[in-house]
Amino acid sequence: MMMNHREHIELEKVLPQEIEARSFEIITEELRDTPLIPGTEPIVKRCIHTSADFDYAKSLVFTEDVVKHTLDALKKGASIITDTQMGKAGINKKQLAKYGGEVYCFMSDEDVARAAKERGITRAAVSMEKAAALDKKLIFAIGNAPTALVRLYELIQENKLHPELIIGVPVGFVNVIQSKELILSLKEIPSIVAKGRKGGSNIAACICNALLYML
Amino acid sequence: MMMNHREHIELEKVLPQEIEARSFEIITEELRDTPLIPGTEPIVKRCIHTSADFDYAKSLVFTEDVVKHTLDALKKGASIITDTQMGKAGINKKQLAKYGGEVYCFMSDEDVARAAKERGITRAAVSMEKAAALDKKLIFAIGNAPTALVRLYELIQENKLHPELIIGVPVGFVNVIQSKELILSLKEIPSIVAKGRKGGSNIAACICNALLYML
Repeated sequence: MMMNHREHIELEKVLPQEIEARSFEIITEELRDTPLIPGTEPIVKRCIHTSADFDYAKSLVFTEDVVKHTLDALKKGASIITDTQMGKAGINKKQLAKYGGEVYCFMSDEDVARAAKERGITRAAVSMEKAAALDKKLIFAIGNAPTALVRLYELIQENKLHPELIIGVPVGFVNVIQSKELILSLKEIPSIVAKGRKGGSNIAACICNALLYML
Repeated sequence: MMMNHREHIELEKVLPQEIEARSFEIITEELRDTPLIPGTEPIVKRCIHTSADFDYAKSLVFTEDVVKHTLDALKKGASIITDTQMGKAGINKKQLAKYGGEVYCFMSDEDVARAAKERGITRAAVSMEKAAALDKKLIFAIGNAPTALVRLYELIQENKLHPELIIGVPVGFVNVIQSKELILSLKEIPSIVAKGRKGGSNIAACICNALLYML
């Protein structure tokens, strides 16, 4: 027979619609001694909400006026490119559609897989080329593949791409740190980058959502 | 004009098909002084691969023989229930389908939304009831909602559910720690739990994938 241990475990009584607000209260309280850049707080807090990892209060780097610039782009119908289906799944597409934007992920496309195999590069890199060919205002939300960031860097250097924003938060161990540094070296490109190894598709998606909820 | 800083940033040369193996090598090397439970290593390492967060080497708790039991269940066609579309998007559905399993997420279902509103509980809790009514072998991969874990605990206590496995890795600040403790108190239910606040849909999905890749 199973023992009922529930009496020893006290659940906090919070209504479903109040869970998120209560979580942000706790995060705000725990961040009280951590200085944040004015205007970026909702983004930093949402990253911590998504990960329970307070490292993001220190690792996130914002270019000047990036929030204002991105909100303007979103209002003008900018679309979002992700490097994983998970990232796409996590973005609030209803909120984005209100302003005319869509989310694209080309990672599972057959032409992308074929070109990647033929050229010996990653599908993520080919996906970025496919995105760059779109005639739209573009926000890149990269949570997985450093090779996507490297290809974005090259496309920008080659003058083939002028993104509204690059969210550079791939996670991992091979060229992750370097790929983020490449993006940070592009002084004229608005970016939000999580320095170091950490990040993820969930972080990329939640940064998009934080921006969408600021509209 | 943008300056080209690339010469200062050295990229490691790794072929696309070798990036994952190289990442696991680095993780294995950095874990050399951390004892892991034999047989659970691929799961712990994949969680670190997904998050770049070595806390998982200490926070993951496994019930006895959980890996063997789960692999048996997957071979017999067990299906997976997630509490987010992101989690569903991240699971290798092709690999699961080879053995007859599917991934279900009921969070966006209209009947679930309606019942949740009427009853004043979360959609995640209602989703668990909908899943429990399926006549299938079930693995629950919970990366977001502690209320899903609480409802699973209750359904099991009420003898309405006998899951093959509960992956209890919701992330956050409200009842997250307690909900995990509830699952751990069910001594006869196979579980993999990330103690503490950390977890996420990405972690839930990657634990599923680690198990699928062990088949």
